[in-house]
Amino acid sequence: MSDQPEAPVAPVGAFEPPYYVAVFSTVRSQEQSGYGETNARMEDLVKDVPGYLGMDHAQTPGGLGITVGYFRDADALAQWRSNAEHRAAQKRGRAEWYQSYTLHVAKVERSHGFTRAEDPQSPTAG
Amino acid sequence: MSDQPEAPVAPVGAFEPPYYVAVFSTVRSQEQSGYGETNARMEDLVKDVPGYLGMDHAQTPGGLGITVGYFRDADALAQWRSNAEHRAAQKRGRAEWYQSYTLHVAKVERSHGFTRAEDPQSPTAG
Repeated sequence: MSDQPEAPVAPVGAFEPPYYVAVFSTVRSQEQSGYGETNARMEDLVKDVPGYLGMDHAQTPGGLGITVGYFRDADALAQWRSNAEHRAAQKRGRAEWYQSYTLHVAKVERSHGFTRAEDPQSPTAG
Repeated sequence: MSDQPEAPVAPVGAFEPPYYVAVFSTVRSQEQSGYGETNARMEDLVKDVPGYLGMDHAQTPGGLGITVGYFRDADALAQWRSNAEHRAAQKRGRAEWYQSYTLHVAKVERSHGFTRAEDPQSPTAG
C-alpha cells in the first residue's frame, strides 16, 4: 500500500486451496495526512496474525489502488478484522483517506502461478 | 489493464454474495509488443460473457499489476476461461508479456462498499 516506487517484484504465489483472499479496492481522497505511517504500521501488524500468508498491492497513480491479503483460513481473517488498532485505522480511513472503497472476502477454490524461464533468446508466439 | 492514465474512478461495488472473483497479479516482462491491443480486446470480449459483473485494475509503474474480475457464478468464469481467443491471449502472455503471475479464483462470502459523503469541511478523526 506504499506510494514508494517498488522494485520489480513477483506477486505472492499460489497456495494450496482452500485459503482466503481479502480484496480491498480503493480510491483515495485529497486528505492523506498520516496515511503513510498508518499504512506501514498495518503492514507490520498483519504479519503477526497467525495464518497470514502475504499481501499484494498495486496502485495506479491518481487512480485505483488494489490490495489483496491472503489468509490461511477464516479464523485468521477474523483475528485481523477484530484487531483494535486495525479497526481504529479503518475508522480513520473512512473519515479521511478514502473517497470510496470496496472489500470482497472470498474463499479460494483454485490457483496457479507462472514464472517465466530465462529465455536464451526472446521467444515469439507461433 | 491499460497503461493509460486513468481518471479518478470508483472501484466496482459490492455485489450480493455469493459471486466469484478472479484475482490476477502480474509482473510484466520487457517484451510488450501487442500487449495493449490484446488487452483492450480481452476487456471488450469479457463483457459478452453472461454473468460477467465487472473488473478493477491497478498498475504500479514498473511494479505489480492486479486485475480483479467479478463473475456471478462458476459457470460465467468457466465460459470466460474456455473462450478460444482468451486462451490464445493467455498463451501469448506466458510466451512474451509476463515475467510472472499468480491467479486466484475465489467465491465471495461477504463484501461491502463505502463511498464518502461530500464533506462540508474536512472532518478530522477524534
